[in-house]
Amino acid sequence: MRNIKLTLEYDGTNFVGWQMQPNGRSVQEELEKGLQQILQEDCKTNAAGRTDAGVHARGQVANFLTASNISITRFAKSLNGVLPEDVAVIGVEEVDEKFHSRYSAKARRYRYNIARKPTALMRYYCWQVGYPLNLSLMSQCVELIRGEHDFQSFCKVEADVDHHRCVVHAAEWKERDSALEFDVTANRFLHGMVRALVGTMVDVGRGYTSMEEFRKILDARNRRIAGMAAPAKGLFLEEVLY
Amino acid sequence: MRNIKLTLEYDGTNFVGWQMQPNGRSVQEELEKGLQQILQEDCKTNAAGRTDAGVHARGQVANFLTASNISITRFAKSLNGVLPEDVAVIGVEEVDEKFHSRYSAKARRYRYNIARKPTALMRYYCWQVGYPLNLSLMSQCVELIRGEHDFQSFCKVEADVDHHRCVVHAAEWKERDSALEFDVTANRFLHGMVRALVGTMVDVGRGYTSMEEFRKILDARNRRIAGMAAPAKGLFLEEVLY
Repeated sequence: MRNIKLTLEYDGTNFVGWQMQPNGRSVQEELEKGLQQILQEDCKTNAAGRTDAGVHARGQVANFLTASNISITRFAKSLNGVLPEDVAVIGVEEVDEKFHSRYSAKARRYRYNIARKPTALMRYYCWQVGYPLNLSLMSQCVELIRGEHDFQSFCKVEADVDHHRCVVHAAEWKERDSALEFDVTANRFLHGMVRALVGTMVDVGRGYTSMEEFRKILDARNRRIAGMAAPAKGLFLEEVLY
Repeated sequence: MRNIKLTLEYDGTNFVGWQMQPNGRSVQEELEKGLQQILQEDCKTNAAGRTDAGVHARGQVANFLTASNISITRFAKSLNGVLPEDVAVIGVEEVDEKFHSRYSAKARRYRYNIARKPTALMRYYCWQVGYPLNLSLMSQCVELIRGEHDFQSFCKVEADVDHHRCVVHAAEWKERDSALEFDVTANRFLHGMVRALVGTMVDVGRGYTSMEEFRKILDARNRRIAGMAAPAKGLFLEEVLY
């Protein structure tokens, strides 16, 4: 069997998320339908990150095994021809049979966008926050999350994982024009982690939560004391590193 | 009467354009409905540029006269509260009674976006051009259109104007990541001018039209010999200068 790696861009607005679900339109389902159409084969796909409903991707990675001998160079074009317009294949590569989009990934990078003024063009791609935010305090929060920590306080309670330790390789808030961008790279992300971190840092930025409280939340390993999750539409899976 | 200047951002995807029309949803109609709701007054609005169906704006300017004594500071927020989410007021200013968004404008700046690879996130905001383009030839076209010229070859035939002379203050193609951006600033734009210019320059870039032919098209003052108009969805009214 050949092992094919796909890099995908998608607009999460009209998806229930990456993962196939009994009700609702998933990216995985659309992709597997497209593969069936091109390859006449039932291909099971894996993805590096199971993005939630409404979350976008600029560089999701998925892979699948196939018996087909289709040419890799024509494959992206054929697949884009049958996929719905809110999913695009932006890279195709034949990889070693041991490659697994999820288990082989060394790190993922996410970006969260906040708009500081009303916007029509970005309405599906950012969180519009009208109240003042202290970016310097939000950047102090980032210093506390860099490195290895137990992020249970920022993980959805139902998440089925062995442990909640993640290594944050890089994290930073950037201001540009009237937007704020939070970029974060880690070896792994827990379910809902970026959105819970952003929601809680915004609480700090608007003076609702103190730095001392933020530190306590991080140490508490208890999701119930962190802030609300930031809306899904501001989140992008940017890149998966192998 | 007070004269109020509004700066507007809108997503043209679901509009028939700026101008009110018997059938179809226009930006002007939505704006005037919103003003009626806030001011309890029938306000007639003018805009700097009558963008076509599907064309977007990051900095359209409109003005209207009102007898109301509403505070300018609260006005943007109130209006955004009643406008549909694909139109946003991003600036409000009280101006001299002589100010007219269209007649007072000294120049407008438009941008046209071309994507060089498949994209899901930008599908409503660019023209996806898959074939190779020679950017150097397209930049040579730009040199020919800078300055004052008769642009009748790039104007929709039915346009009701006295003359077709426009002064192009600045124009340039920029490449970034896998996108091309065409930025153009002129004292005035004819109906369909940017899209016809872009469509014809892309014909040059792909080798379908020679530089010599492009020069002849510009000199001919005849719309029928220019290239196809580029799709509306790639065009943005960026800014109006007074």
